[in-house]
Amino acid sequence: MNDQLSNLVQKAKESTLFTAPVLSSHLERFLKEKRDLIRNLARQAIEEKVEHIYWVGSGNSWVNLHSGKQILDRYTTIPNDCFISYDFIWRNPRRLGEKSWVFLASFSGATEDTVLALRYAKMRQARTIAIVNSAESLMGREADVVIEYQSKALYILPLAFAYVFSLEIARLQGVEEADKVMQELYNIPPLLHKQYITEEQSAYQKAMMFKDENLFYVLGSGPLYGLAYKFGLTVFMENMRVNGSFMDASEFRHGPVEMLWREKPAMVFLIGTDESRPIVERVYQVAMTNGAKILRYDLADYGDIHPLLAPFVLMIPLQWFAVYSALLRGITDLDERVFMGRGILGQGNQIIWP
Amino acid sequence: MNDQLSNLVQKAKESTLFTAPVLSSHLERFLKEKRDLIRNLARQAIEEKVEHIYWVGSGNSWVNLHSGKQILDRYTTIPNDCFISYDFIWRNPRRLGEKSWVFLASFSGATEDTVLALRYAKMRQARTIAIVNSAESLMGREADVVIEYQSKALYILPLAFAYVFSLEIARLQGVEEADKVMQELYNIPPLLHKQYITEEQSAYQKAMMFKDENLFYVLGSGPLYGLAYKFGLTVFMENMRVNGSFMDASEFRHGPVEMLWREKPAMVFLIGTDESRPIVERVYQVAMTNGAKILRYDLADYGDIHPLLAPFVLMIPLQWFAVYSALLRGITDLDERVFMGRGILGQGNQIIWP
Repeated sequence: MNDQLSNLVQKAKESTLFTAPVLSSHLERFLKEKRDLIRNLARQAIEEKVEHIYWVGSGNSWVNLHSGKQILDRYTTIPNDCFISYDFIWRNPRRLGEKSWVFLASFSGATEDTVLALRYAKMRQARTIAIVNSAESLMGREADVVIEYQSKALYILPLAFAYVFSLEIARLQGVEEADKVMQELYNIPPLLHKQYITEEQSAYQKAMMFKDENLFYVLGSGPLYGLAYKFGLTVFMENMRVNGSFMDASEFRHGPVEMLWREKPAMVFLIGTDESRPIVERVYQVAMTNGAKILRYDLADYGDIHPLLAPFVLMIPLQWFAVYSALLRGITDLDERVFMGRGILGQGNQIIWP
Repeated sequence: MNDQLSNLVQKAKESTLFTAPVLSSHLERFLKEKRDLIRNLARQAIEEKVEHIYWVGSGNSWVNLHSGKQILDRYTTIPNDCFISYDFIWRNPRRLGEKSWVFLASFSGATEDTVLALRYAKMRQARTIAIVNSAESLMGREADVVIEYQSKALYILPLAFAYVFSLEIARLQGVEEADKVMQELYNIPPLLHKQYITEEQSAYQKAMMFKDENLFYVLGSGPLYGLAYKFGLTVFMENMRVNGSFMDASEFRHGPVEMLWREKPAMVFLIGTDESRPIVERVYQVAMTNGAKILRYDLADYGDIHPLLAPFVLMIPLQWFAVYSALLRGITDLDERVFMGRGILGQGNQIIWP
């Protein structure tokens, strides 16, 4: 690695995009400071007999809530949906009402889609809970309850919120496994601290190998569905400015696979240790033996981790790859956007994003 | 158009892929023959106080059920989810049980993922309803109720099932609008008959213009979300063997847009006349002014159609485009698959797909 690249990496560490340097300490702090608040919220949801929970956001701030639905579906009896902000409004769900809780995530707290979704939910008399960087944001001021995470860790902290809340509901509904997952979540910060150091070198090597690719598929299933979406359709496209495609890994078998006859694209596989593993491995083998250029991120490489915690563990390896890949493509200011944040894609009074 | 291509188009009309020639008559027949059966099923669901409905399938046979969830969410109070077959099994939803109904779609009735999902649902004591081409298939024999559509129209007929069932639930729950949509659905077959004739020429011209593209994004929102997924991740990739990417159109603003700085890909916009239109138009304008190669399919071009019926109306224009695009890429047998249906991607006793 040359000096120039080293200097750019140093600069990258200060960027909003590159959260790996702070993830460990910020997650530890978040779990410590917010745990009781979030658990009380869960208890309240049970006591108030909430009839439907909606997880609402856009882009990264949609998929970081996705695990919340997965956990509630798996372990609890509360009907719930995870909707893209505008889709939530357009769909105009009949069940939405006084007995609904709506969680809305946005880093800026001033994302057009999600601000409107918040106002729509209030208009329908639902309880609104905003998960935002700062309580002083537009959404922070308008929501009934605010979870303020005060950090650039805009994926991992809302994700942690979704886990703690959903696992606490599960625990209150008598699921012993939920306590186990919760306990293991406390082991994650030290692992992230270590990963920030140990993952850099191999990420650099992978980025060098893939530096001329201009299309990346990212595939994941189960607990890794959300993280695969995040990197496939947000981080890689947004920060490396390449073409991207995301799908559930099992779905690759139902049509997409036929393109391998002519195309040999870069394909990134996120592989968990949950029930989805055998099918994802099968897809991986087909892609491998038919010439796709493959990157494999496997939870099994990181020791004995609860399968549900996969997205916490594969985040830093992928982020290091994205940072080097952006720099190697001449994108040296990781916080600069060509289109987003300029009043073109996001519009409205006090709206600053996208 | 030369003679050779004309001959290939004639041959294509006999293929399983190319359903446009039969869509009008088969939809008309399906609505006539199955309407009472489906409406009785809806009445029964209400009478039995079904607590949760699951829509389950893979690939095309997942997204054709997607509209069922949209309609139930919008017009009814029944909690429901639309899951990819394996995701349904892996998620292992706690709510699933005796008071659940599970709709499972598969053209062959012998799709690995969906056969397993059916058995899993039965094991959990849920009522299973298979939507299959033939009642004599594996799923047809194992499900509690079978909706047999006896046609190659593997998108439009299961879609019609999802509409009729969900709209009938809505009607029984007092939604007047549901009757209106249902009435308008009966006007669709004559339109499809006309489209099969009138759409060919412009599809050929578009296919010629895009014949050298090897990556297509397909974007749609609201009622067109499912159709955009179908063409983006199944038809184009499966039959034209090109790279593909699908996302909700509103999501393009939350990351993906940044790739337009370097890339000028082919982008297909499906534009409805529902609430999503202004945002989809905004995304369309950004893509247009930044050099993407654009194909626009707009429901507004087809007269006064109920916004919810959009996927029925944009199907044939897109399918004609796919047929010509496949032929122009040297793929002359539209039913040949390189990987699917060969015991690699789909495995198990009596399993024939994918």
